[in-house]
Amino acid sequence: MKRNPTKSTGSPVPPGHTRYTSCGIAAAADSAGPPVPPGPTGSKVTRIWKILVGPPLRADQVTSEELSPVEGLPALSLDALTSVAYGPQAIALVLAGAGAVALKFALPITIAIVVLLALLVSSYRQVIEGFPQGGGAYAVSRAHLGAGFSRLAAASLIVDYTLTVAVSIAAGVAGLVSAFQPLAPYTVLLCLAMLAIITLLNLRGLGDSARAFLLPTAAFIVGLLAVIVVGIIHPIAPHVYQPGKSLVATHALQVIGVLLILKAFSSGCSALTGVEAIANGVPLFEQPRVRRAKQTELLLGVILAVMLLGLGVLIAHFHVAPRMHDTVLSQVMAISVGRTWAYYTVTISITIVLGMAANTSFGGLPILASLLARDNYLPHLFSMRGDRLVYTKGVWVLAVLSGLILVVVSGNTDTLIPLFAIGVFTGFTLAQAGMVIHWRSNHAPGWRWRAMLNAVGATVTGLATLVFVFSKFVAGAWIVVIAIPAIMLLFQHVHRYYAAVGKELDIFGSTNVPVPHCDLLVLVPITGITQLSRATISQAMTFGGEVVAVHVAFPDAGSEEEEMRKRWERWNPGVPLVMLQTRYHSVVRPITRYVLQAIHDGKDVVVLIGEMEPRLLRHRLLHNQMGTVLSMSLRRHTDATVAILPMHVND
Amino acid sequence: MKRNPTKSTGSPVPPGHTRYTSCGIAAAADSAGPPVPPGPTGSKVTRIWKILVGPPLRADQVTSEELSPVEGLPALSLDALTSVAYGPQAIALVLAGAGAVALKFALPITIAIVVLLALLVSSYRQVIEGFPQGGGAYAVSRAHLGAGFSRLAAASLIVDYTLTVAVSIAAGVAGLVSAFQPLAPYTVLLCLAMLAIITLLNLRGLGDSARAFLLPTAAFIVGLLAVIVVGIIHPIAPHVYQPGKSLVATHALQVIGVLLILKAFSSGCSALTGVEAIANGVPLFEQPRVRRAKQTELLLGVILAVMLLGLGVLIAHFHVAPRMHDTVLSQVMAISVGRTWAYYTVTISITIVLGMAANTSFGGLPILASLLARDNYLPHLFSMRGDRLVYTKGVWVLAVLSGLILVVVSGNTDTLIPLFAIGVFTGFTLAQAGMVIHWRSNHAPGWRWRAMLNAVGATVTGLATLVFVFSKFVAGAWIVVIAIPAIMLLFQHVHRYYAAVGKELDIFGSTNVPVPHCDLLVLVPITGITQLSRATISQAMTFGGEVVAVHVAFPDAGSEEEEMRKRWERWNPGVPLVMLQTRYHSVVRPITRYVLQAIHDGKDVVVLIGEMEPRLLRHRLLHNQMGTVLSMSLRRHTDATVAILPMHVND
Repeated sequence: MKRNPTKSTGSPVPPGHTRYTSCGIAAAADSAGPPVPPGPTGSKVTRIWKILVGPPLRADQVTSEELSPVEGLPALSLDALTSVAYGPQAIALVLAGAGAVALKFALPITIAIVVLLALLVSSYRQVIEGFPQGGGAYAVSRAHLGAGFSRLAAASLIVDYTLTVAVSIAAGVAGLVSAFQPLAPYTVLLCLAMLAIITLLNLRGLGDSARAFLLPTAAFIVGLLAVIVVGIIHPIAPHVYQPGKSLVATHALQVIGVLLILKAFSSGCSALTGVEAIANGVPLFEQPRVRRAKQTELLLGVILAVMLLGLGVLIAHFHVAPRMHDTVLSQVMAISVGRTWAYYTVTISITIVLGMAANTSFGGLPILASLLARDNYLPHLFSMRGDRLVYTKGVWVLAVLSGLILVVVSGNTDTLIPLFAIGVFTGFTLAQAGMVIHWRSNHAPGWRWRAMLNAVGATVTGLATLVFVFSKFVAGAWIVVIAIPAIMLLFQHVHRYYAAVGKELDIFGSTNVPVPHCDLLVLVPITGITQLSRATISQAMTFGGEVVAVHVAFPDAGSEEEEMRKRWERWNPGVPLVMLQTRYHSVVRPITRYVLQAIHDGKDVVVLIGEMEPRLLRHRLLHNQMGTVLSMSLRRHTDATVAILPMHVND
Repeated sequence: MKRNPTKSTGSPVPPGHTRYTSCGIAAAADSAGPPVPPGPTGSKVTRIWKILVGPPLRADQVTSEELSPVEGLPALSLDALTSVAYGPQAIALVLAGAGAVALKFALPITIAIVVLLALLVSSYRQVIEGFPQGGGAYAVSRAHLGAGFSRLAAASLIVDYTLTVAVSIAAGVAGLVSAFQPLAPYTVLLCLAMLAIITLLNLRGLGDSARAFLLPTAAFIVGLLAVIVVGIIHPIAPHVYQPGKSLVATHALQVIGVLLILKAFSSGCSALTGVEAIANGVPLFEQPRVRRAKQTELLLGVILAVMLLGLGVLIAHFHVAPRMHDTVLSQVMAISVGRTWAYYTVTISITIVLGMAANTSFGGLPILASLLARDNYLPHLFSMRGDRLVYTKGVWVLAVLSGLILVVVSGNTDTLIPLFAIGVFTGFTLAQAGMVIHWRSNHAPGWRWRAMLNAVGATVTGLATLVFVFSKFVAGAWIVVIAIPAIMLLFQHVHRYYAAVGKELDIFGSTNVPVPHCDLLVLVPITGITQLSRATISQAMTFGGEVVAVHVAFPDAGSEEEEMRKRWERWNPGVPLVMLQTRYHSVVRPITRYVLQAIHDGKDVVVLIGEMEPRLLRHRLLHNQMGTVLSMSLRRHTDATVAILPMHVND
């Protein structure tokens, strides 16, 4: 967990020095030089943003992490641990649809889920051994199942990361609203605010996260375990007043049957999301890595099992039922320890830890996206690091997607649960299946029972995935069933495009640069006779071609056109003015058309646009941005070079 | 209400013809010519957008409207009429905070509001007479109260228009949710969808609106009056089951006192918003305009008064109290006519009409913004018409602002009510006060009693505004109290900026264009040796200056740099390659620095960037957009001309 600012490994070039070699190749370094580099400029917004995000980091300032098992929990297991905030709730909510009687099935279902948890933890301890370099579902299936399945794994992971962010934040805010009921109308706003904070921290690049996460994680684990113990031994407020309308159906809307139980089980399996994260992050542990990671996985499994079972027992014991604006977890805590400082402390720690769980996805998705971009499956933008060495685009995309989801479901966790576990369990299944092949080709000691264990894991999680899809299809699972193949199609589409463009850009055979024939026409669009037009025409003359000024006259401008002619004649800057007439309300159309005509006539056209460049960025909004709009159209529809001459104004 | 496609009034220039006059001035028209104009291109997104928004309109295709009094209602009075959907609800909600007993004050408060309505309608009938050219608060106060007050009126109107959109849409969705309870979790989504539809229609330019609005408006008025009549004579379902949790306080949280009554009155006055719209739109009426407009105003007043009183009586009679996810209006209708087809028809017509009321603001704000832009109070962008002759920027700003508000309040009308009436009543007060001065300076027949009537109106609405601010300050009115002066400051700031820039751009004294000394350096940033670099270097050579290629080497790129050198030597395109080294992860920084150095050395620098231009717009995302990012930095920090050469790829 330490920053490791070693020295640059690049060749030692003296600062500011430029050397030209015999073949015309020169080198220059950027560390110093007479003109000041573009630091924080006048714009307040830019400066505030710089303060929030932090100054640029040097490329060698990459963080190296060395996790102990105890640090491994906050760094890699928060997604799994915090699922106690929504898993039990999800079970209760499904059962409540069939009336109060159905709620008694909550405990048996929880036990089944804990059994599945034990199986998953054992399987993933094996993945850690088999893939000590970090065995995410993508890595395992790429190694053993081929490109198709690895793309399936990647698509599932993308869905999973995005939903984890949305679900964790929504659950965190739901906990907060349960404790502070007057916040209820601002649920969506709180969700978006939490998302904004997490996004900002990630744009900064969160090197020291795990250490900072230790305290809230400890508070959450210890606090919740204490609440469970108190609740089992002697609840303090068994008859506490519970606000919020009960969500238990009074006229039973559903029959208690196998489908209902399967639905409740599917929803409850959302509590198992995240148990794979440790296996993905093995390289982050201190030596001996594999042992440390396996210890952490076991620790996670035990704590999660105890919490789930404890909450299951208390929910049954207290007859807790889902309510509006009061989560099941909040009700259990309120009965156990009363709405005292203990309740509020644990609630706030849970909200913080859920926020940190969302943060885990922000660690995962941008890196996955950068790997996919390098494999030409996603736009190359995703593989570009920003100033803070973070894969900025991935962070932004994740923030926008999860923000949209939060708005669409109005910050309601329950709406997301049916979508949630499918992606994760697809990943589980692929990872386990890949491991079976791994052991069979590897023949490590005990490979038979190891392969068997992973085979059982793959079968059970595969079946569970099918159960989720079928039992939850109408409730929202169909979205995932569409989204995952859609993402896979996107991968293919991008891959094909890059292949095609790569072929077009390649320089085959003839390598010389043709010296062009120079029938250059420089067009200068002007809107009036100002210092800007003067500077632009002056610059246009340096290009050494024919210079023509163009002005577009709108039909409703009336005498303005005539006046413009007269003023131009008086000014007489030495270049001709072409008046373009249009019947539409657009400057872009007639100029584009004029350029097309000139190119058609065999000219090499450069359009030089003078553009005001105010000192404060926000003042740009006060200019018409004709240059930007015009250059977009010209780039799209013509082969003309579009040049912009900035004129800096002292505003 | 007819489109009036008259012929262009511009000078008759033959299509495609270009004529050069003696002094070097030429004219060209855009109606035809050999190269095809940039029509709908390959991009599917662009084409779908074009279909949604419609083809460009010629500048002469402006709609002319001629409203009869009956058409005037749907065109100008929907905001006022639909406020019955939230006004009574707002009163009941405030009173419910003090328990069931307080609800009996709802009817007296409604009567007080109807008295105020009568006063307002009489006053505005006078405004119509005094300002037959359209007497909005902005126009009246600009004419009679000076620039400061007119800016206050404009700022109030902006707040008012934005809130009208948000409140109308939220109320429309609340009605829908009341009728179809399972939609409740999707409130925000429904609000945003409704907003999106209205925005789209307005980007299209809604010429034929009033006629299309006639039927839903009639359905709404007739339906609601019928519901009231049935309810008063013989309610069909007096004991209907009402879903949704009651919002009446069981332990009274507030004391029934003057403040509570004032609060309820303030909230109820939200029902009076929109009565000024007819006075703003007098020029839209058919001749005799003033009489028609006055008739419409009276008609509006009578219908609104009957509806408010009728609902007030029924609410008292049925003991209706506010509930979750079931509006007061919905409850009244459900008791009157049962949850039958009649209930659903009226509910849907109310939602549609509320949507159309939101649409009214979309007609108003963009035009107001364009007027303010022409007076240099808002960015000039707002005065530019789009392809459909609509003030596009104003439409977008209104859509984004009201969308944000809807998200922030989670689509809840009740949260917005405390903010709502302040802006409107500020406008009322200013308009009436201006009218007093108008009559006094005008001395029209009966000017004394006319001035007296407006003075009473100004006093009462002014007092009401103060009551709103004080009684609702904590509940949200403070936001408006901050927002209106903030907008006024914005006006001033923009005005000052334009004055300063205007001075800088002005060409005084010397008018000749200096012929520049030509020490031109053309820099070509390249990332690899491809057909793109070849084309760009080739184009750079046409400019007739020194051409230098630059490449940025990242510290972690390792051998890539060495390889680039070798390939360049092999290729040998005839221009030198400068290797820029950087310790950060940014191409922009070292190039900007190099350009600054060159300018410092007295060069006239042009940076020519080759940029891939895929046929499909969405494929742009697959390229790194280095050109865009680089040109942004160069424009900001240097005086270099930035030119982009598009290379079209066949993807």
